[in-house]
Amino acid sequence: MQPAEIVYLNGEFVKKNEACLSPFDRGFLFSHAAYEVTAVFDGKLIDFDAHMARLDRTLDGIDIPRDGLAERLKSLHEELIARNGVTEGFVYLQVTGGAYGRRDFGGPETLTPGLFMFCETRNLIGEKAQHGVSAITVEDQRWKRRDYKTTQLLSQALAYREAERGGAFGAILHEDGMVTEGASANLWVVLDADTLVTRNLGRQILPGITRQSVLDHLAREGITVEERAISLEELLGAREVFTTSATGLILPVVQLDGKPVGTGKPGPVTRRVQGQYYRGIGADLDARAPWLNATG
Amino acid sequence: MQPAEIVYLNGEFVKKNEACLSPFDRGFLFSHAAYEVTAVFDGKLIDFDAHMARLDRTLDGIDIPRDGLAERLKSLHEELIARNGVTEGFVYLQVTGGAYGRRDFGGPETLTPGLFMFCETRNLIGEKAQHGVSAITVEDQRWKRRDYKTTQLLSQALAYREAERGGAFGAILHEDGMVTEGASANLWVVLDADTLVTRNLGRQILPGITRQSVLDHLAREGITVEERAISLEELLGAREVFTTSATGLILPVVQLDGKPVGTGKPGPVTRRVQGQYYRGIGADLDARAPWLNATG
Repeated sequence: MQPAEIVYLNGEFVKKNEACLSPFDRGFLFSHAAYEVTAVFDGKLIDFDAHMARLDRTLDGIDIPRDGLAERLKSLHEELIARNGVTEGFVYLQVTGGAYGRRDFGGPETLTPGLFMFCETRNLIGEKAQHGVSAITVEDQRWKRRDYKTTQLLSQALAYREAERGGAFGAILHEDGMVTEGASANLWVVLDADTLVTRNLGRQILPGITRQSVLDHLAREGITVEERAISLEELLGAREVFTTSATGLILPVVQLDGKPVGTGKPGPVTRRVQGQYYRGIGADLDARAPWLNATG
Repeated sequence: MQPAEIVYLNGEFVKKNEACLSPFDRGFLFSHAAYEVTAVFDGKLIDFDAHMARLDRTLDGIDIPRDGLAERLKSLHEELIARNGVTEGFVYLQVTGGAYGRRDFGGPETLTPGLFMFCETRNLIGEKAQHGVSAITVEDQRWKRRDYKTTQLLSQALAYREAERGGAFGAILHEDGMVTEGASANLWVVLDADTLVTRNLGRQILPGITRQSVLDHLAREGITVEERAISLEELLGAREVFTTSATGLILPVVQLDGKPVGTGKPGPVTRRVQGQYYRGIGADLDARAPWLNATG
């Protein structure tokens, strides 16, 4: 999959191959940058306000000013998808500490943010959602503030590379015997017919927007979710496992470290959550996910 | 201080304000990048081979190919300082996972490295070495592989910003009550006349090149160094504290969290280590550091 032709960089819409970033940008030198990925479905941005609220929280946490940013970002997102004709896919946004021609750890007292955005057409309810994906388990080596969505993504990138080398799709992170989350998604585990678990919020995981949306859907249906840490042992013995993220939406994990999860096929709880979520964003289930009724 | 006019980026020497990096570079999107900073003194690169050995180790650790890189880098360093007429200062080198026009965590099976270099004129034996610096103590929030020198430097950048807001120069990191190192330097502590301590190598700290050089100097003089973790309490009660790094060389820390370290002036052990190191790189002490003989 390729980014759409027009990207936005520091004040200008330009062709992606002509986008020119200063290598002195603090995002490049120090990973001093926040990011968000917002899904686009049927031409609409999904949960945009929630993404911007999380962005604000990250920017506050990493000392990048956000005055006036929110208002500009809404129209920039809309203009970017309009220019590129994206009706289903996502918008990537990165806000950095900016460039000022020097490399100094501290930098100016008040930073001038840098802004990079691109969008991409992607089938959000595709084969991975239908058939599920495989994952490996990997030690979580990230920094201590995973609740901030920053570009300190090296360990996640390495986890994906390790997964792909072994023929798997993604990775699930754990530390001290407890699962944190997926390498770029929150994690959900069905332990038995009555127990759906996802990690409680805290510094250990990202407060996922899709995670919250799924929690809201489940609460409306009266389904209880335990929000707590899951042990690696519980994960490997689970009936069903699925992830939530802005671009994967709800993805069944059907194989872990080479072994089937439960029956090795997406299970009924996962299918139910997919159905809820897809309906929630206005998807025509008969057209987009006819397989939802064929299982579970 | 400003970078010198000519930088090197992905195959070309260009003016620093015209250097054009793709925002799809993995260094920018995922912090997938290693870096090194090599001091230049009297026109010569200091400990170049040791820096390149550490770079190789980081690149291996973060899955960036380094075939043929070492040979090219020596001449690139030399050409860069020659083009800019730098005789004292440093060369900054960043090797990234490269750009290929997409954002995907895993990326191609074999990455094509990106390369960014700049150099800067700096007085390596200056006022900070003479008078010492102030620092604050900050919780260490870095990822778990601090022995790799990567651009996941956000928490260090934030530590410097916090220090500077409080009028201090730098920061010393600690976790679980134990000191790890400085935000961009290794840390040394003199506890009493006979005890010089620096943290043992491991995943918790960067294996500093200047640190090793100082250890070698001290061993040749028969001075014992304890390599172990230092508690925050020991640090705050120390007689002397100093840091080692490629561009600061040996910097006395004379104030910690607003309180004087020992007498509040650079102490005799620090001065001795400075003298050894400066002589080791060929500095004329009478001309460059006459203050060395005036204390301790």
